[in-house]
Amino acid sequence: MPPLTSGSFRRAVLLRICSTRLLAGHRRASGPGCRWDPPAGAEELRGELDRFGGVSVRLARLGALDRLDAASFQRRLQAAIQQWRSVGRIAVWLHIPILQSRFIAPAASLGFCFHHAESDSSTLTLWLGEGPSRLPGYATHQVGVAGAVFDENTGKILVVQDRNKLKNMWKFPGGLSEPGEDIGDTAVREVFEETGIRSEFRSLLSIRQQHTNPGAFGKSDMYIICRLKPHSFTIDFCQHECLRCEWMDLSDLVKTENTTPITSRVARLLLYGYREGFDKIDFTMEELPAVYTGLFYKLYHKDLPANYRTMTRMD
Amino acid sequence: MPPLTSGSFRRAVLLRICSTRLLAGHRRASGPGCRWDPPAGAEELRGELDRFGGVSVRLARLGALDRLDAASFQRRLQAAIQQWRSVGRIAVWLHIPILQSRFIAPAASLGFCFHHAESDSSTLTLWLGEGPSRLPGYATHQVGVAGAVFDENTGKILVVQDRNKLKNMWKFPGGLSEPGEDIGDTAVREVFEETGIRSEFRSLLSIRQQHTNPGAFGKSDMYIICRLKPHSFTIDFCQHECLRCEWMDLSDLVKTENTTPITSRVARLLLYGYREGFDKIDFTMEELPAVYTGLFYKLYHKDLPANYRTMTRMD
Repeated sequence: MPPLTSGSFRRAVLLRICSTRLLAGHRRASGPGCRWDPPAGAEELRGELDRFGGVSVRLARLGALDRLDAASFQRRLQAAIQQWRSVGRIAVWLHIPILQSRFIAPAASLGFCFHHAESDSSTLTLWLGEGPSRLPGYATHQVGVAGAVFDENTGKILVVQDRNKLKNMWKFPGGLSEPGEDIGDTAVREVFEETGIRSEFRSLLSIRQQHTNPGAFGKSDMYIICRLKPHSFTIDFCQHECLRCEWMDLSDLVKTENTTPITSRVARLLLYGYREGFDKIDFTMEELPAVYTGLFYKLYHKDLPANYRTMTRMD
Repeated sequence: MPPLTSGSFRRAVLLRICSTRLLAGHRRASGPGCRWDPPAGAEELRGELDRFGGVSVRLARLGALDRLDAASFQRRLQAAIQQWRSVGRIAVWLHIPILQSRFIAPAASLGFCFHHAESDSSTLTLWLGEGPSRLPGYATHQVGVAGAVFDENTGKILVVQDRNKLKNMWKFPGGLSEPGEDIGDTAVREVFEETGIRSEFRSLLSIRQQHTNPGAFGKSDMYIICRLKPHSFTIDFCQHECLRCEWMDLSDLVKTENTTPITSRVARLLLYGYREGFDKIDFTMEELPAVYTGLFYKLYHKDLPANYRTMTRMD
């Protein structure tokens, strides 16, 4: 399995339920701040132990906490942390439904911070091990895909100018991948939404990585340009997103100064492929099986000659 | 600028401060739930209007909220939402410091949900426009990078077997990118951490995309394999991560069945490049300037012949 999956495997296990119960100590809630008399059993914060020494606590599964106020929760969590430390746990994962978010600030006051949050729940973590936290991070990149729709019969390429740009430069239509969307599917969808042109994925041409992108909420972005084959040719572009949209001679896009460096570079790459064979510039796509999940994934690389694909022990 | 940046640009503006003040109505806090008598001005939730019709409210800047309880906050937020709706705002961004998380549940009860959270703050959103939300999402991918360290002088490739795998298969060392880390830097770092071998980035060989990865907290992952040139050859592998580590004849890695489909495929790709020229399989890297930020980014694609790079209007 690829190295990434090694990390993935670790994290999958970090989240696995091992039905372990960890007592959180027996200090009782008290004082004017407490509007709740804990019934037997409610003093416990049940954690799920993972094989790496971490503990996951899922508040949604702890019904006894429903009527617990923030102060009482903090006392129980503090006692639980002492207990987990005493038995050598290295980390705590706290999963909090959004409607129980009153427990977030008390956890933060004990050193927890957000790992991530989405939709109706958040996950906080506390590192108990030695040195800096070695817990895996959350998603670091957004993925944008552009479609270079090239008509080999006419030598024309589909280009647009954004409506909301400071400079109106010719570029390829495209946009952000939806969650779970494949690279080629994003390119085809964005091209259709922006220009009305239907197309088909042919290859991956170029990748760009940028970091601390303000438009990505400070995260990184991966920008991928694909080569697409058009299936329709009548432009009906999105007036909201685009100022202009044209089928332009590829040689003109190569020569114009009214474009971005990356568009100009990929235009030259396309011209090279158009004249000398797209096999010289394409990363083609193929589906391969994943070892552990049994699912298939899409792999992109330079096309491999048949004799290398079929190479055997006899070779 | 690439299409991705079009979205990025919109989002950057969505977050821009326009020093607009939006009144949140004048309903006074009341009832037994209220332990706070609002001073003049505290009835206001100040929002920052963006050019796309959205409003950003940053609780950290609203000092008057420090002593506000959840119930009182909910009444003010509800009045504010009515006000924003009445003037045609399409969305609300609510930025909440972790220690003010008592305001999350009340917001959720009014329809807000988490957009993201990290470290010491969370961001919630409420879509007020027509149809489904058109607000941009958060990071969707983690990025893992493996290093195929190939010694052209000996024809040997550096491979490892993970310690924590169900099946111990030969693969390339690698792991997850750190936030803000470039692809090649991740490969070189992971190779050194796992094997003790120092190396240098040469090219990008292959990309794989997988979705709903449990190890990525349900997000997607992008797995990239780079070709690296070794600068040292004495293996000192990480006993914690690896079971084995070897310099293996590339031809043997091509033939072995004790490896993953992706490793076997890339081994064949490397053999093809080794025999017929790495220019046949490499995506090389180059830095190009970004149009709007003035920064540089790294772009990967098939190497372009000099005459195509220098093509001018004269061509």
